[in-house]
Amino acid sequence: MTTSLPSESIRNEFDLKPYLESRRAIVDSALLNYLHGSRRNDAEILAAMTYSIQAGGKRLRPILCMAAAHALGGSEAEALPVGCALEMIHTYSLIHDDLPAMDDDDVRRGKPTSHRAFSEATAILAGDALLTCAFQCLADHALQQPPQQNGQWLKIIALIASAAGQDGMIEGQMRDIAAEGNELALDELEQLHLLKTGALISAAIESGAILGHADAEAYRSLKEYGRCIGLAFQVADDILNEVGNPEIMGKAVGTDRLHRKNTYPALLGLSAARQKAADLVNRALRSLEIFDTKSDPLRAIARYVIERRR
Amino acid sequence: MTTSLPSESIRNEFDLKPYLESRRAIVDSALLNYLHGSRRNDAEILAAMTYSIQAGGKRLRPILCMAAAHALGGSEAEALPVGCALEMIHTYSLIHDDLPAMDDDDVRRGKPTSHRAFSEATAILAGDALLTCAFQCLADHALQQPPQQNGQWLKIIALIASAAGQDGMIEGQMRDIAAEGNELALDELEQLHLLKTGALISAAIESGAILGHADAEAYRSLKEYGRCIGLAFQVADDILNEVGNPEIMGKAVGTDRLHRKNTYPALLGLSAARQKAADLVNRALRSLEIFDTKSDPLRAIARYVIERRR
Repeated sequence: MTTSLPSESIRNEFDLKPYLESRRAIVDSALLNYLHGSRRNDAEILAAMTYSIQAGGKRLRPILCMAAAHALGGSEAEALPVGCALEMIHTYSLIHDDLPAMDDDDVRRGKPTSHRAFSEATAILAGDALLTCAFQCLADHALQQPPQQNGQWLKIIALIASAAGQDGMIEGQMRDIAAEGNELALDELEQLHLLKTGALISAAIESGAILGHADAEAYRSLKEYGRCIGLAFQVADDILNEVGNPEIMGKAVGTDRLHRKNTYPALLGLSAARQKAADLVNRALRSLEIFDTKSDPLRAIARYVIERRR
Repeated sequence: MTTSLPSESIRNEFDLKPYLESRRAIVDSALLNYLHGSRRNDAEILAAMTYSIQAGGKRLRPILCMAAAHALGGSEAEALPVGCALEMIHTYSLIHDDLPAMDDDDVRRGKPTSHRAFSEATAILAGDALLTCAFQCLADHALQQPPQQNGQWLKIIALIASAAGQDGMIEGQMRDIAAEGNELALDELEQLHLLKTGALISAAIESGAILGHADAEAYRSLKEYGRCIGLAFQVADDILNEVGNPEIMGKAVGTDRLHRKNTYPALLGLSAARQKAADLVNRALRSLEIFDTKSDPLRAIARYVIERRR
């Protein structure tokens, strides 16, 4: 999809593609290193965890976390274990969402879903293991840092658990299931997405803000950025499902309409949905105005969220 | 079941029944307080989490954690949040184990299992939420403690995540599923149980040891105690399934034999299985010899593990 943005925000010449590619490679390698540090390397459960971790995501959450830390002058490397934990939680949520009792999907990113490649029991346990592993990753890493940083790591663990739990992502999935076959109002749809995908994206940004020692104003601004691009990401996803190129996307399009899903294009029409995505991205960009050029990656990612073709 | 113990170990006059009842009441109330502190009190997911938490367990893991801290002169109250986290993880594992894709059980402790009382999707998510909530409970509590304790809490989070994860409880469940229809050797059965139930029971004792500031010798002794009673608990469970009173137990007996499960009585015969349980309890008691009377609850629990009738 392409959505025109006001000229004020097109002053950014940051080259996003090599940035995303290099960060994705770093995250991929850190994730595999972490999983292969497991005690029982030949175990089926590890094979199932690795299969889904390697299924090839955009690694948006880890990259957002690293970019938020960097925007404040913090270290990207320090944010990497948090990024890995976030990606493990994101991956577990996809494995469980795909299960027959939930969305019953056979294919994700062009590959059989976990319960099709392994078994339903293994898929449930691989999801459980990735969720557990995320907290182990955070606590193990925290214990290797200087003691005066312990409190910061506990804050990050609490923040991520809250975003992923019954008041965050899981409540979003409950509402998504309950919404099937019912038409939602726009604010209900927005609440659903703020929980289902927004909570973990916000936690990625906020963790980065904690690692970058954000003051109250910077934290608030980054939080607003996270909230806006989390929603924009979902609106863009809905638009891509309506008008995207299935070859580029590696999955079928038009499926939301077929299943009468609650989407922004269905509720608002395609043109108003596009405008909504652009408005959200502009709000995200405005919230970054207090930062210097170190936040250019965050600015570029905000635009990418709605300009991407898959 | 009743298994005779050598006279050396019957010098304990600690009254276990009121101890277990009072601690169980404290744990029950702390668990409900914690869940009702959730932001969305009317949510279906919270109802499902509460339903399984209230299904009425023995609260063995929380009580072991409190008793281990007490044995070292530590505070039971301080161990309570850890106990709650352990019980949430134990409860999530039961919800997921009962799912149609796993053991496909309709009844647990005389009540419909989560996926029967709610839906399969809700049961999966309630398990996910309890697992996530356990880590939130630990991190939230840790952040309310003095900063010099932060490191200790990170250690406990890492320990519990490791025990619950792909190298611990989840690997045990994978092996249990793989063992269906295959006869295991005794050491394979032991490894399975050390992972499936032993890992979390050991984590309960070891967390209590950390909270009680155990030195290396005390830690080793408590770890050995945890390992022995974890296994003894499982041997006793197998024996109860063979010869227990279904009315007292609130569930059918003889089901393991019917499903040709790998159990200690099936592998060893009933009499040798009873001896094995008694030997394990005696080893657990011997490992407590370095402690004073503050470890009497641990001694009494070790006996209870094989003397219980349900």
